[in-house]
Amino acid sequence: MFSVTVRDHMMIAHSLRGEVFGPAQRLHGATYVVDATFRRAALDADDIVVDIGRAAEQLHAVLAELTYRNLDDDAAFAGMNTSTEALAQVVADRLAERVNAGALGDTARELDGLVVTLHESHVARASYERPL
Amino acid sequence: MFSVTVRDHMMIAHSLRGEVFGPAQRLHGATYVVDATFRRAALDADDIVVDIGRAAEQLHAVLAELTYRNLDDDAAFAGMNTSTEALAQVVADRLAERVNAGALGDTARELDGLVVTLHESHVARASYERPL
Amino acid sequence: MFSVTVRDHMMIAHSLRGEVFGPAQRLHGATYVVDATFRRAALDADDIVVDIGRAAEQLHAVLAELTYRNLDDDAAFAGMNTSTEALAQVVADRLAERVNAGALGDTARELDGLVVTLHESHVARASYERPL
Amino acid sequence: MFSVTVRDHMMIAHSLRGEVFGPAQRLHGATYVVDATFRRAALDADDIVVDIGRAAEQLHAVLAELTYRNLDDDAAFAGMNTSTEALAQVVADRLAERVNAGALGDTARELDGLVVTLHESHVARASYERPL
Amino acid sequence: MFSVTVRDHMMIAHSLRGEVFGPAQRLHGATYVVDATFRRAALDADDIVVDIGRAAEQLHAVLAELTYRNLDDDAAFAGMNTSTEALAQVVADRLAERVNAGALGDTARELDGLVVTLHESHVARASYERPL
Amino acid sequence: MFSVTVRDHMMIAHSLRGEVFGPAQRLHGATYVVDATFRRAALDADDIVVDIGRAAEQLHAVLAELTYRNLDDDAAFAGMNTSTEALAQVVADRLAERVNAGALGDTARELDGLVVTLHESHVARASYERPL
Repeated sequence: MFSVTVRDHMMIAHSLRGEVFGPAQRLHGATYVVDATFRRAALDADDIVVDIGRAAEQLHAVLAELTYRNLDDDAAFAGMNTSTEALAQVVADRLAERVNAGALGDTARELDGLVVTLHESHVARASYERPL
Repeated sequence: MFSVTVRDHMMIAHSLRGEVFGPAQRLHGATYVVDATFRRAALDADDIVVDIGRAAEQLHAVLAELTYRNLDDDAAFAGMNTSTEALAQVVADRLAERVNAGALGDTARELDGLVVTLHESHVARASYERPL
Repeated sequence: MFSVTVRDHMMIAHSLRGEVFGPAQRLHGATYVVDATFRRAALDADDIVVDIGRAAEQLHAVLAELTYRNLDDDAAFAGMNTSTEALAQVVADRLAERVNAGALGDTARELDGLVVTLHESHVARASYERPL
Repeated sequence: MFSVTVRDHMMIAHSLRGEVFGPAQRLHGATYVVDATFRRAALDADDIVVDIGRAAEQLHAVLAELTYRNLDDDAAFAGMNTSTEALAQVVADRLAERVNAGALGDTARELDGLVVTLHESHVARASYERPL
Repeated sequence: MFSVTVRDHMMIAHSLRGEVFGPAQRLHGATYVVDATFRRAALDADDIVVDIGRAAEQLHAVLAELTYRNLDDDAAFAGMNTSTEALAQVVADRLAERVNAGALGDTARELDGLVVTLHESHVARASYERPL
Repeated sequence: MFSVTVRDHMMIAHSLRGEVFGPAQRLHGATYVVDATFRRAALDADDIVVDIGRAAEQLHAVLAELTYRNLDDDAAFAGMNTSTEALAQVVADRLAERVNAGALGDTARELDGLVVTLHESHVARASYERPL
């Protein structure tokens, strides 16, 4: 099994609802350093998993819809907590849509899976893994 | 599959028995930077895998039993080598006991697995992965 | 010259005023991984610059006043931009007050200087350096 | 499941063929920071996955055949692109040969698998995973 | 004293002349992860050292002239070794020219100094520091 | 001003004397990831600060005298605490002796200074800087 991972980041404000979150119930923010990993069983005709440049562009495009925003104001997240793990799924699902729509080229449709990891600090991170 | 990882560290002395260890047969020591990863298939009602704050507290509690000690003097490790990989299992098993005892809350009982990684330097690390 | 550095982090929301900030004029947030470096010319009687444990506690206390908050609502920052570099000075000045008040012990009054670095992502950071 | 990972690096020149590579079609180069992960279900009689020192030596030996070279001149890579992911497989396969030939000792023949990750920059990496 | 640092990277091929370089006399390559640090004594009217976005753009522009190339073919480097430390100076001097030409805005002319660090692997780096 | 930094590590046991050290008064240990930085005003005839390979060898030789040992048993440290900052000085002074004895070659005698940083965990480090 092969994989390629690209890294980018986003900087957002949000608050979390539920006693479990303690002080994180207040409006605060985070830098998420985001790793997106693309997996496939065999390399394509160019000997790659996916074009690293295009993968980086698509990750950047997904993060551009979120960064420098207060996620509490984004209708897409109404009724859910934008926890690190929930946002990992959001980024992964939006990347998957782009892959399925051909944004990474035709051969990228043979990708098997995707993992998105959000590093919220030097001591905590969360991931979401899904098939493609 | 979702996961959340928290990081902490411990600083211990120990020696290793067996020719394979060469100079590490002498009493020496290590800083282990420890990552504990909690996995589950679906998020709980708060949209999280596990409370990051409580996960960090439990990891800290497990490491507090080991740090600033000479592991050669700890009866728990009699008859075994406290190699990096063996210690990864020790930390994982002790964390698992705590999870099973409810230390991370009731919904954490739905966790599927646990991975513990000990980084012993900038060029070597070891992991142990187990179900929960 | 000797130095000791301790690391912690804070997660805040804020917005920046001025065209130069582009999309960062919107309410957003950041994780700042914070390094505080304490410098002195000679070690004290215990052969240290400063007690690492107490230094970490004081840094944590300074960051606790800022983390999990919207800095736009903090009267201390009225009329200024809470840019990464300006926040580095805030953290350094608050740490310096604590050092001068004896929070790191008597011998810590012989410290020569302090550097605070805030890492805002994997690709950007800012520092402020001052005498003590 | 246990694993041990050792890290080393190589510095090579190469070019890539295919429009997808854009400017990387020109002769350029890369530092690959290489992680090799050895996996096994149970520890051996010394309580280890594999001797970290010997694992590091074998990884170094594999990389010594590649580093400080122009891979375009290496007959082993004729007709293929030396993409990061393809090189991850090359390193993994050469390590696997050494393991199978006994270079890590007899008990290392019980290893279950191997993962090799090449970090090509602070924002991109690729991996190849195979059984042993 | 304040500073702001931005990070980017370049991937180049080159060879080095001189017995001291051993195998690095062969054509090989490197990824340089590049940190550019801008220093000034006081913040500007926007409470910043320099606009991080523009600083990152200018660093990217300087690196774009070098990346994905064989530096042995670049007339700018005839008669010199493109060692990591020499390239740190090249990047710093080219950034300084841009700052002096106003590429970072008028207030950036008040910058006091510049440090450029090139990380060539996880175990080696070089820096060049100059006034502005 | 130019600099070159090389990285290596050592793994030692020790205890610290003095109430300030709390639990670190017990025998414990540490991995120190060690950075040695060599500074000079101008490059030598080969366009380098110092040969990175030889610098790495000399740092390795200095650390080889300390690693895999209990520093409490080393007569060189009688009557002092082997704190991180004190050990940074030990490593720097031993490296300086080697530089002065010609171990890095004749042109390395023109080095201006040396900084040694010991990272004791992901959240603490100490440095010592001296002229050469």
